[in-house]
Amino acid sequence: MNISKESLDFHRNLRGKLKVVSKVNLKNKKNLSLAYTPGVAEPVKAIAKDINAVYKYTIKGNSVAVITDGSAVLGLGNVGPEAALPVMEGKAVIFKEFAGIDAFPICLATQDAKEIIRTVKILSPTFGAINLEDISAPRCFEIEEALQDIGIPVFHDAGTAIAKLLRFPNEVIICDSKGIINKKRTDLNKYKKGLAKITNSRGVKGSLSDALVGADVFIGVSKPNILTTEMIKTMNVKPIIFAMANPIPEVMPDKAKRVGAFIVATGRSDFPNQVNNALVFPGIFRGALDARASRITPTMKVSVAKALAGLVKNPTRQKILPPLKDPRIVPTIARAIREVIK
Amino acid sequence: MNISKESLDFHRNLRGKLKVVSKVNLKNKKNLSLAYTPGVAEPVKAIAKDINAVYKYTIKGNSVAVITDGSAVLGLGNVGPEAALPVMEGKAVIFKEFAGIDAFPICLATQDAKEIIRTVKILSPTFGAINLEDISAPRCFEIEEALQDIGIPVFHDAGTAIAKLLRFPNEVIICDSKGIINKKRTDLNKYKKGLAKITNSRGVKGSLSDALVGADVFIGVSKPNILTTEMIKTMNVKPIIFAMANPIPEVMPDKAKRVGAFIVATGRSDFPNQVNNALVFPGIFRGALDARASRITPTMKVSVAKALAGLVKNPTRQKILPPLKDPRIVPTIARAIREVIK
Repeated sequence: MNISKESLDFHRNLRGKLKVVSKVNLKNKKNLSLAYTPGVAEPVKAIAKDINAVYKYTIKGNSVAVITDGSAVLGLGNVGPEAALPVMEGKAVIFKEFAGIDAFPICLATQDAKEIIRTVKILSPTFGAINLEDISAPRCFEIEEALQDIGIPVFHDAGTAIAKLLRFPNEVIICDSKGIINKKRTDLNKYKKGLAKITNSRGVKGSLSDALVGADVFIGVSKPNILTTEMIKTMNVKPIIFAMANPIPEVMPDKAKRVGAFIVATGRSDFPNQVNNALVFPGIFRGALDARASRITPTMKVSVAKALAGLVKNPTRQKILPPLKDPRIVPTIARAIREVIK
Repeated sequence: MNISKESLDFHRNLRGKLKVVSKVNLKNKKNLSLAYTPGVAEPVKAIAKDINAVYKYTIKGNSVAVITDGSAVLGLGNVGPEAALPVMEGKAVIFKEFAGIDAFPICLATQDAKEIIRTVKILSPTFGAINLEDISAPRCFEIEEALQDIGIPVFHDAGTAIAKLLRFPNEVIICDSKGIINKKRTDLNKYKKGLAKITNSRGVKGSLSDALVGADVFIGVSKPNILTTEMIKTMNVKPIIFAMANPIPEVMPDKAKRVGAFIVATGRSDFPNQVNNALVFPGIFRGALDARASRITPTMKVSVAKALAGLVKNPTRQKILPPLKDPRIVPTIARAIREVIK
């Protein structure tokens, strides 16, 4: 059976990868009196008196909304909110299975940045944190930025954050769909202009092929199959390839290795070296919720990256990171978040 | 231990009455490949091609959003979205325990009707139906009305709906906080003007006391303790009292019975004759989701009321309705909904 047929059957049989479950048996009349009427009036009054009590008596402190507008889903593009739902369900169940977080998928019927910002603010009372997901750039930057002060962490994973986290960003060359980002380009939005200032100190121009000549590392969060074997051959010796377009990477690992790639990582679980955001987001949110952080800071992200790398004592070409199922990951990352806050 | 202390402990120990649970074990690598990457791309593509497939591959067909703005919570009034969360959680777990529906509470940080309407529309892709809850009148009417054509059922339970469902509305007198609603009043909003036209054919004026003289039945969905023993004494013989303010009813049952009330019903689970909306909403939504209805119609509501009453073969003063835990209720009501659609 091929993966596509099997996956459709799998999803059809489940009709939703998550379910909502009551923590109390309501067939018991006393429980019903406590959980609903008349008992529920007491926590309501307590929270009305002190809004912080919402963390004490409700799901808020352990709940995350996984929110998208369906504009940049996987490598598939603007598929719309309904088609994004299977992915957001997948994120939600990873939150639960890996970090014990109660996450719920929410797919928005709007792609207007201002309206998305307003909607997330309106939704915030129920949730302890917001995971924005698969919203296309540059709207995702505008949206994430505008939501940093709403009192709960709002986090979107986006490619530009990678450049900002690298230790020597001026040694990094970034390409967008038009080619290499440099200060001379006149078609850059304000986010890319910001990147042009801190990267590409040599002022390289041209396309992805030009950027890769002599490069040590390729990090792709872009499109399927854009990295050719010819390009890889022009890279420095023992090139390192992070091909994280999903589900089809920028280059397939076996193809890259045939032309000398030393280490290849992808976002997929069926190849070695899975660099999937699922490695970090459950622990990041676990730590942020536990510490009741109001935002996720760059310092936290660096702390997380180091803690994650530290989990592999003896790295090899096939194992630069712990596998997703490593039970140490979530507590280690959550601790890395909490330590930065302290 | 008193109920209020016990309820606070109960809620503090739970920190949320519901949890989100994964239907698949993601520690199994194959499941992770199917549920997340690369497998999840297949249902995404299928839904992008045919939007109706969202019912086939996702949680949508079994999920309900329980949405409030916190403006009219229980009998407690405008407590705000955070304080409303314990009640919405209670509704959500009743949906699950009684009807197998995956419901999630959503408390909105806005009380602007237009903004609530827009937000519900924006949230609709994820959900199979929307239960609006504890939004104050008249905004709740405007909001429910504006959302009837969004393709999924949107349902708010509200007092005016009761008058409209009674068989002879012209024999009904409705009171608001200012007194009896009649055609002469000049302070009525458009919803109350509509009610003035179809009720109170005798043109009675005055207060609640005036309305009750000679009345057979009192139906309250208002405030604690507003029905006095003096008022009950002026009613017809064997008066029937529905005192549904929650958690403190318009009159306590024992007090009403001492002055001759024949049947007393409240919204509470700790007295006989619980007329709680939990009797009907799980079955109504179950039926609507199963039939993939696009709205809940008045005909459906009448069908449900008759089906529910029909479940008590030999009614007594202490048992005019089946108890909430009666396992026949949800399937009977769901059938009553489906039969009307056929």
